[in-house]
Amino acid sequence: MAERVGFIGLGIMGHAMAQNLLKAGFDLCVWNRTPGRADDLIRAGARGASSPADLASRCQIIFVCVSDTPDVKAVILGETGIIQGAEAGSLVIDMSTISPLATREIADLLREKGIYMLDAPVSGGSEGALQGTLSIMVGGEPEQMERAMPYLLAMGKSITHVGGHGAGQMVKLVNQILVVVTGLAVSEALLFAQAGNLDLAKTIEAVAGGAAGSWMLSHRGPQILNRDWRPGFTIDLQQKDLRLILEAADQLGVPLIATSLVFNLYRTLQARGLGNEGNHALIKALEHLAGIEVGSQR
Amino acid sequence: MAERVGFIGLGIMGHAMAQNLLKAGFDLCVWNRTPGRADDLIRAGARGASSPADLASRCQIIFVCVSDTPDVKAVILGETGIIQGAEAGSLVIDMSTISPLATREIADLLREKGIYMLDAPVSGGSEGALQGTLSIMVGGEPEQMERAMPYLLAMGKSITHVGGHGAGQMVKLVNQILVVVTGLAVSEALLFAQAGNLDLAKTIEAVAGGAAGSWMLSHRGPQILNRDWRPGFTIDLQQKDLRLILEAADQLGVPLIATSLVFNLYRTLQARGLGNEGNHALIKALEHLAGIEVGSQR
Repeated sequence: MAERVGFIGLGIMGHAMAQNLLKAGFDLCVWNRTPGRADDLIRAGARGASSPADLASRCQIIFVCVSDTPDVKAVILGETGIIQGAEAGSLVIDMSTISPLATREIADLLREKGIYMLDAPVSGGSEGALQGTLSIMVGGEPEQMERAMPYLLAMGKSITHVGGHGAGQMVKLVNQILVVVTGLAVSEALLFAQAGNLDLAKTIEAVAGGAAGSWMLSHRGPQILNRDWRPGFTIDLQQKDLRLILEAADQLGVPLIATSLVFNLYRTLQARGLGNEGNHALIKALEHLAGIEVGSQR
Repeated sequence: MAERVGFIGLGIMGHAMAQNLLKAGFDLCVWNRTPGRADDLIRAGARGASSPADLASRCQIIFVCVSDTPDVKAVILGETGIIQGAEAGSLVIDMSTISPLATREIADLLREKGIYMLDAPVSGGSEGALQGTLSIMVGGEPEQMERAMPYLLAMGKSITHVGGHGAGQMVKLVNQILVVVTGLAVSEALLFAQAGNLDLAKTIEAVAGGAAGSWMLSHRGPQILNRDWRPGFTIDLQQKDLRLILEAADQLGVPLIATSLVFNLYRTLQARGLGNEGNHALIKALEHLAGIEVGSQR
């Protein structure tokens, strides 16, 4: 029997995910800091709540999808937070991307009240959220993941249990290292190709199928050639995740030379007011250093 | 009607490629600096030649697959080189990976004698050479590429014309930038995952299908977890190609920060005597800096 489901955080990602839960027929209650974002969901059959605590008192499964570590702490542990309303036995599932260390601390505090937690950050962007095809990386107790599966399947396609509390967040950060440094590979390769006066579309076609291939090359490469900087994921959000990575790496004592390099290159783009562009605009930082522009007259 | 075909350079790659030409039924003549490498091909029906010039005097289509720019110059322009024996109208196809600038110079010198040239470097490694599934990036005149197609199809699967003389070499170098910097992404991500005590196989599984995915992650990631350093492509050969890239980048005036970083990291592995290991052993350079080892007890 399905439990009552709550969803906190109706940004671009959370709104689409809540919509998919509603479409799948679950009894849904929603809350957002800016109330207007809930209106259409309520018209479509969701119930509204007056606070995270209010929502938690009425649901057994409580999803959270907000921006950063302080926001998650506020809606879970704050004065009107989930922890003030949730009954023992409830399950909080945090789909935000936040600090793995903070995740373990929050899970410990919830456990003291008999409340379960999973960290379940996602990849796949706003497109994946809309289509219900997100990849979801789950950390926490396997039994709780089993309990959450019917709801997760309404939002995602590939759902993987990767370890204990915080492991989902750690794997998400690994994902982001791969995304940005592979993006650096694509940027540097296209810059070199441009300097060498190559036909860039043909170049991508010739190499994408082999050992040089990547999702970033096949999907963002052509977008770069068209100088289409619309975001699948913005530089500002990418920087938030890189900050989490570098903070975790510092705590773990592991050097991340390439990831730090990308963080600093993105900084230069933020300084130029380009934080709202897609993360593939990384190449603009290299173009600026090289004094050439990809896609310009050959 | 098929023309007579010559093949110069019977190393691991060239030997396998010559074998595929022979299997496809072409009339083949071979030459190698160390003659013993030709023995089994001659037993299987190929004819031997006493020098590149001798070979060139008997063939209209002359393949070259040797190690580096000086080797190509020696077999094409040297005292007993192709240029001394080839008739006007012959076609020289260089499948080595060498300097794009030197390629254009060689093509100019051959053209003065009425000899055509294509640069046609390959990717896909020794496995691709054996199976006849190489990717071949062709620079030069399109009509000459048409002429070469029956022979190229015996050796490769994806054959792309990418531009004029030297463009094949340039695209190959773009390919190598992507390979090594994407490899750096994989290395840094796995190192971070190890430091964070994650299950690395599960981690790869969770992220490989999305925006973080790459050929290097899917193919070399699992090999790294098994600490299997057998080469698809050795560090020493990779360094030769990186040197060509950095030399070309210097001539073109374009900075390549990440590729330079990888070149220097590989240097540290060569200094430790690891030049014969596969290019995915790059992670050992990061492990050395971090003082941890991927795949060790968690």
